[in-house]
Amino acid sequence: MPDHPLEAVLHPKSIAVVGASDNPGSRGYSYTHHLLDYGFKGHIYPVNPKYPEVLGMKAFPTVRDIPGTVDFVISCVPSHEVLNMLEACSKKGVKGVHLFTARFSETGRHEAIELERAVLELARNLGIRLIGPNCMGLYIPGEGISFAYDLPQESGSVGMISQTGGGAAIYVNLASMRGVRFSKVISYGNGLDLTESDYLDYFAQDSETTIITMYVEGVKDGRRFLESLRRAASIKPVIVVKGGKGQAGARMTSSHTASLAGSIRTWEAAVLQAGAVSAENFDEMADLAASFYFLPPIPGPRLGMLGGGGGPSVLAADECEEEGLEVLPLPNEIQEELKTRAALVWDWIGNPIDLSILGGSGISGTEMLEMMAANHNYDLLLANTTEVPLASQADTPARAENEVKEYIALINKYPKPFLVVLGEKSLGIEDYDHWRWRLTGQMRTELIAAGIPVYPSVKRAARAARKLIDYYQRKG
Amino acid sequence: MPDHPLEAVLHPKSIAVVGASDNPGSRGYSYTHHLLDYGFKGHIYPVNPKYPEVLGMKAFPTVRDIPGTVDFVISCVPSHEVLNMLEACSKKGVKGVHLFTARFSETGRHEAIELERAVLELARNLGIRLIGPNCMGLYIPGEGISFAYDLPQESGSVGMISQTGGGAAIYVNLASMRGVRFSKVISYGNGLDLTESDYLDYFAQDSETTIITMYVEGVKDGRRFLESLRRAASIKPVIVVKGGKGQAGARMTSSHTASLAGSIRTWEAAVLQAGAVSAENFDEMADLAASFYFLPPIPGPRLGMLGGGGGPSVLAADECEEEGLEVLPLPNEIQEELKTRAALVWDWIGNPIDLSILGGSGISGTEMLEMMAANHNYDLLLANTTEVPLASQADTPARAENEVKEYIALINKYPKPFLVVLGEKSLGIEDYDHWRWRLTGQMRTELIAAGIPVYPSVKRAARAARKLIDYYQRKG
Repeated sequence: MPDHPLEAVLHPKSIAVVGASDNPGSRGYSYTHHLLDYGFKGHIYPVNPKYPEVLGMKAFPTVRDIPGTVDFVISCVPSHEVLNMLEACSKKGVKGVHLFTARFSETGRHEAIELERAVLELARNLGIRLIGPNCMGLYIPGEGISFAYDLPQESGSVGMISQTGGGAAIYVNLASMRGVRFSKVISYGNGLDLTESDYLDYFAQDSETTIITMYVEGVKDGRRFLESLRRAASIKPVIVVKGGKGQAGARMTSSHTASLAGSIRTWEAAVLQAGAVSAENFDEMADLAASFYFLPPIPGPRLGMLGGGGGPSVLAADECEEEGLEVLPLPNEIQEELKTRAALVWDWIGNPIDLSILGGSGISGTEMLEMMAANHNYDLLLANTTEVPLASQADTPARAENEVKEYIALINKYPKPFLVVLGEKSLGIEDYDHWRWRLTGQMRTELIAAGIPVYPSVKRAARAARKLIDYYQRKG
Repeated sequence: MPDHPLEAVLHPKSIAVVGASDNPGSRGYSYTHHLLDYGFKGHIYPVNPKYPEVLGMKAFPTVRDIPGTVDFVISCVPSHEVLNMLEACSKKGVKGVHLFTARFSETGRHEAIELERAVLELARNLGIRLIGPNCMGLYIPGEGISFAYDLPQESGSVGMISQTGGGAAIYVNLASMRGVRFSKVISYGNGLDLTESDYLDYFAQDSETTIITMYVEGVKDGRRFLESLRRAASIKPVIVVKGGKGQAGARMTSSHTASLAGSIRTWEAAVLQAGAVSAENFDEMADLAASFYFLPPIPGPRLGMLGGGGGPSVLAADECEEEGLEVLPLPNEIQEELKTRAALVWDWIGNPIDLSILGGSGISGTEMLEMMAANHNYDLLLANTTEVPLASQADTPARAENEVKEYIALINKYPKPFLVVLGEKSLGIEDYDHWRWRLTGQMRTELIAAGIPVYPSVKRAARAARKLIDYYQRKG
């Protein structure tokens, strides 16, 4: 099978940044900076007639002045300069142009809409593919291309297609903190030339991508989109967030990316029908991406859980049931085993496991989880270690360290899906230096490094698990 | 009006910790430690026949051996020692005993239930009030009493009544990070003598408490509880979390605090009918506590909002509408003003305000918020600064600092309810030292110090706002 036409656009050997600059507040600076910082291996050509050098590299007045060919261009110039720039690009063999440049049809202004049409026509005539306009463009860590500071430099297998640029950076960051790593992220804004469906088709066949995540506000061609979605979803999980669900959101989408939002009910039904997974927002998309990334298929809803202390256990069980999981009582064979292993409390221990009952019982929370892991009645396991209890520094760090070790041993021994909950916190500046909250960070880092997904709340873990169960059940 | 009988129990001049210990892993240690650490000003009497000293203080073999009177006792001894201890207490004028001691009726065991009955009978005969058993007891920062490490030492005006102890510590911590400070927190476990209704009656008349928060699994006397709830809610906001809503949770509540959970629908209806505010879990209770604590009454649902960048703005608007707020388009008078102040983009700016449109427009996000603050069409304002965008260190900290200053100036000039969203993060250990996430902590600390409530997500801010609107509308 020949390479997909986008393959060359997304793996350029040389990149020119038009409008490159030494001003750290400008995008012309940051895009150039990112190529250096994330380690782009090909030629980098800053283009700006005002400067002889940008970031220590020779700058060229126009794309025409670059020696040899250029594969890809990042455009940070104003919209009225784009037509000229495209002409210059065609002389240099440019295959793709990312138009960070905005103020086209999204403004709703007649002349801007006309200019956008002219840009498309020219690009089509010149055989140049456009990403954007009005978008952040590419984050492809394996190629050393990024649209934001502080994203991971390592690659992974999650792809993202996003109508929003700022949102894409936010989501990539959220998912990265959860251990997810990306193959390619494409923020495409107005989708003038290449649309959401083109990108979906590309990711469907991309061997570097095993999970597709997506943010759309509206689509150019509903029928084609649903076909592309169905095809992609038949090959790998596709998770979709829809923006512009309400009245204000729908008003916004036209000024944001000049797209038309349809009825949300029709949308949700169509996404489900296509075999994709719907997410409410970037938080939930990060939960789902981490779940598909780390967990084996979840065969059913029967949950064995370590609930934390008394009240938190009760609430955790409530939330798991509300999200559609089944918090199955301990089966006979486990109760029989407990009669000998924890004689004093055997009939008192249940599911969820209330840690406050286990003290001095002869059995630990992880041992209980192990019994559930070994038992065929449970489809998945969850440990709510949300709160390092407000206990003393004398024993908490050692206990936490031990807990992490036991969890890692557990997943190495039993391949059952295992989710851990560690609460996020509204930290004040002093909390960043407190051993208690740093310990939470340490635990999170170690668990994720071992391939255990960590969720910010029981509710979110349970909701993600339920969506995976539904996904695998639909797959049959 | 004479003092409420609980007043003396909750403001003791001397406290004995029975079962006090130098072993840092024991509760006998931590309760004693907390009295010293949180600055209890009265006499502290460690009681333990095994030690001559505990934490550098003279220890007594039994309560009987303490010279003079003792107001309050914290009991960390096993359940079979409680009857003897109560007899000793009666000789010393003890008014209240907190039974951290557990393994009573919550075990479901016949002999434990019998023992619990005997304890109640004896305490009643001796005129001693019991908090618990099977509970964490008191956190009263103004008195220097605490049940956990690292809670604030300063007082505030939020009270809490909690059937769960671990959950109480977790909630107090969550709410504290949001700037809430507490008058008194009572974890009452099995509620053998003093019940949830007694505490509710107390908090209703307590001048130190302006907002009551509450976690219950089941209640001893439904009719009395609803009467107490209605009376309390007619005086001050009462926020209630119900544990044991599902099947597993209901199973758990009996092993946790030996209480019976009722039908959740009946419960929700009764709570609303009583004029109280229902919360789903500790996260939402912290949101609501912070909202009542910091915000003036919200007169209606018409929201003016700064949404963040494009996609996040769209999603933020969606979520606010889903939660029942009205994201009102800009009224004529604001549009007219924009024609002169931001001529290039006046018809493009909307509500929510999309920050990515404002660049170079001549008007800032905070100036837009100010116009909404001054306009009678808006009932409340929200700024979604959830994500410090993944921009460079060159300008981000200065911009954030400025934003915080502008927000503080805004609330000082306009008394309109103003909510700020700053996302929580699943920080890994290295993130704790990164300027970007520390900056979020710095912003949060400064905003809260200025009396601006900060929420972890748009959804949670919107949901809390809607519940306050409903509360004030019911109050009429």
